[in-house]
Amino acid sequence: MLKGRHLIEPMDFSIDELEEIFNLADEIIANPENFKDICNGKLLATLFYEPSTRTRFSFEAAMYRLGGKVIGFSEPNSSSVAKGESIADTIRTIGCYADIAVMRHPKEGAPKVASFYSNIPVINAGDGGHQHPTQTLTDLLTIRAIKGKLSNLTIGFCGDLKFGRTVHSLIKAMSRYENIKFILVSPEELKVPEYIKKEVLEKNNIEFEEIEKLEDSIQKLDILYMTRVQKERFFNEEDYIRLKDSYILDKEKMNNAKKDMIVLHPLPRVNEISYEVDEDPRACYFKQAQYGMYVRMALIAKLLGVC
Amino acid sequence: MLKGRHLIEPMDFSIDELEEIFNLADEIIANPENFKDICNGKLLATLFYEPSTRTRFSFEAAMYRLGGKVIGFSEPNSSSVAKGESIADTIRTIGCYADIAVMRHPKEGAPKVASFYSNIPVINAGDGGHQHPTQTLTDLLTIRAIKGKLSNLTIGFCGDLKFGRTVHSLIKAMSRYENIKFILVSPEELKVPEYIKKEVLEKNNIEFEEIEKLEDSIQKLDILYMTRVQKERFFNEEDYIRLKDSYILDKEKMNNAKKDMIVLHPLPRVNEISYEVDEDPRACYFKQAQYGMYVRMALIAKLLGVC
Amino acid sequence: MLKGRHLIEPMDFSIDELEEIFNLADEIIANPENFKDICNGKLLATLFYEPSTRTRFSFEAAMYRLGGKVIGFSEPNSSSVAKGESIADTIRTIGCYADIAVMRHPKEGAPKVASFYSNIPVINAGDGGHQHPTQTLTDLLTIRAIKGKLSNLTIGFCGDLKFGRTVHSLIKAMSRYENIKFILVSPEELKVPEYIKKEVLEKNNIEFEEIEKLEDSIQKLDILYMTRVQKERFFNEEDYIRLKDSYILDKEKMNNAKKDMIVLHPLPRVNEISYEVDEDPRACYFKQAQYGMYVRMALIAKLLGVC
Repeated sequence: MLKGRHLIEPMDFSIDELEEIFNLADEIIANPENFKDICNGKLLATLFYEPSTRTRFSFEAAMYRLGGKVIGFSEPNSSSVAKGESIADTIRTIGCYADIAVMRHPKEGAPKVASFYSNIPVINAGDGGHQHPTQTLTDLLTIRAIKGKLSNLTIGFCGDLKFGRTVHSLIKAMSRYENIKFILVSPEELKVPEYIKKEVLEKNNIEFEEIEKLEDSIQKLDILYMTRVQKERFFNEEDYIRLKDSYILDKEKMNNAKKDMIVLHPLPRVNEISYEVDEDPRACYFKQAQYGMYVRMALIAKLLGVC
Repeated sequence: MLKGRHLIEPMDFSIDELEEIFNLADEIIANPENFKDICNGKLLATLFYEPSTRTRFSFEAAMYRLGGKVIGFSEPNSSSVAKGESIADTIRTIGCYADIAVMRHPKEGAPKVASFYSNIPVINAGDGGHQHPTQTLTDLLTIRAIKGKLSNLTIGFCGDLKFGRTVHSLIKAMSRYENIKFILVSPEELKVPEYIKKEVLEKNNIEFEEIEKLEDSIQKLDILYMTRVQKERFFNEEDYIRLKDSYILDKEKMNNAKKDMIVLHPLPRVNEISYEVDEDPRACYFKQAQYGMYVRMALIAKLLGVC
Repeated sequence: MLKGRHLIEPMDFSIDELEEIFNLADEIIANPENFKDICNGKLLATLFYEPSTRTRFSFEAAMYRLGGKVIGFSEPNSSSVAKGESIADTIRTIGCYADIAVMRHPKEGAPKVASFYSNIPVINAGDGGHQHPTQTLTDLLTIRAIKGKLSNLTIGFCGDLKFGRTVHSLIKAMSRYENIKFILVSPEELKVPEYIKKEVLEKNNIEFEEIEKLEDSIQKLDILYMTRVQKERFFNEEDYIRLKDSYILDKEKMNNAKKDMIVLHPLPRVNEISYEVDEDPRACYFKQAQYGMYVRMALIAKLLGVC
């Protein structure tokens, strides 16, 4: 039963609950017309204590495409709510006006605190470097929709695997499905943290390998998840110069990949995927943005209990 | 006849006109479904020359819950309208786009000037320290809804009674009803201004007493209206230390209050009401926020003439 | 066929295509009720990389009055989209959420670049000092609606004719119609640029005269288009003092104008039109703002292909 629930962390929902959301997303994608008024009379509050236009747009578009409406703020300055008031009081007041709330906050745990005091569902839209569960739902729906399954897949993550909450969440989430293999491509200093290897991968007997260069294993992948590597994160200039091209996906590397491999990226990209790759039918990162809207439509509808 | 009128000051409407608005609010509360499309095709402009998220949300939620739509700005930076253009020109332009306007402005009198030039109803959502008439309507509807009447009441105001426009407006508004008594609780330096005592209370033969400590009279009250007392407003440190706890409402003080006393607060609160009081059924400040939305729904509908 | 097209420059549409838009605008003005749901389920994205409240309001009101909905940002600060992402990626992402986009950008050409990569119609809402095509459409519809025609007119432009993109665009646009004469009123240093005289006026054999004082020729005009003259733009103080009153439209000058001359101004005005003129029925600048909304309604409907 998802009605009235909060979504604070990517693992808050069981595999079955996720399946319920994804199935609804499938239906929405197939017949958007059937869903265009189901949130008629419902109000979403978007509480963005730090700006994130892309995420905000995705939620607002989702609500509008369900026939609902939106109130909100998009940065802290414009929010007197933010001044001298506890999160508890804010969310209780918001609950007087709106039916569901999305919160983005620079402080880890803020949406969780809000959920304790809220009488309406709260969705975490990113709390500091901590969690961003609807990105994970987006990634899962995209894989499920394009590959037709969430099991029996070899998934490569490439780039900064140390600091990326997106990567960590997706590794955890995929680890719940059957026969998943990971190939983790990063420089030494940006490897996946030990606790993820121990508590997630090893604990669940999941096969993985860690490599330094994308070109070495791209041919094995069903999914390639790209993230950015910032120069500042390298310990020394030499390593950066030696390795930087290994974390840029270009046409040449794509030539060695499977015909049905798909490329994902949470966006925005800087230069880690060459523009020439955009034309490749395997480049799915803009489709991914679209699935992001659909999965949020399904999520909102489920938490509101209108579907 | 409220259609086409402006609301600039709390006393702009007669008791009968307020009654008309409150009766509509009652109907909306009872059957919100019946009103969810009455503003279909109507557009509200929210012109916030200074931010006030809570007030803006309340108006926007009100309009959306009537089936209307909203354009607006939430702070002066984002408003080129604000630059080098007279209020007169701005409101005349807004009148080309929208059907009704809400204005919040740091300068006293700005909404009044706008109303002179406007061909659409203008609602003052706060002009400097001057007026905030929809807060007064909110307070009146809340009292009327929960106590079942606006007469024969003993009302306590506690905190800073000198600078609070909310307090002054509500004293004036309640003074129009029968058999009202006020108990005014504040430190010496933050007492209700003389002109209110002379021109409102004494002129209308209204019984009132001024006391320094809330605990001394809380047992007499039907309504306790709390406001914040800022340390900086005290003349000396000694007084502040001696008195500060008298302006904080806690469980202990609540134990001496009537069983059906209600506690109101315009929000946001800082620490003038302890969190422990929130669970007390007499704590009505979040309900008050909800009545604020309903009274704005009724107000908008009346000024637009759709009800 | 306008469906799916972009509007980047004022001359992007042929005279016939403009006629199609203006005819639809006429219908909307006559029977707005018939059009209030035609964009039901459609989403407009307003991408304002610099603030322009008036233009944004006009587009948003237009979309709402067609039954559509709006997502967007109103200034760059609140836009993480703006950070480190190419215009190409931004518009492709927006295309995942919205059905049509309006872009205002401080850099010339940005909306054009966006249109190259966009799978949804892009409307330029102003790119630096370059183009502002919907202002031109507004001006044309206003003239057509009030004068009943776009040919056989003597049009005066008064003020800063050197830097005003609005003036340049309208001269070009009007030059496509029959028997148009221009009277260009400006100080020497703010005359219409040579390339417009050569490439537009002379090339099309259009009659025009350049004069220094409005009072000298106001009696000849069917339309007077006022713009502001900034003191800083004068080369010397003497000229400014000698001429400044010639660029302020007042009652006295209006006395010498034709009974059916109309006064236009893109707004906001500062002091170039005296407030006393507002009451004159020939003052049409607020009507113009209203036509601005109607022409945007027609434009959006045509580009979306819903009419």
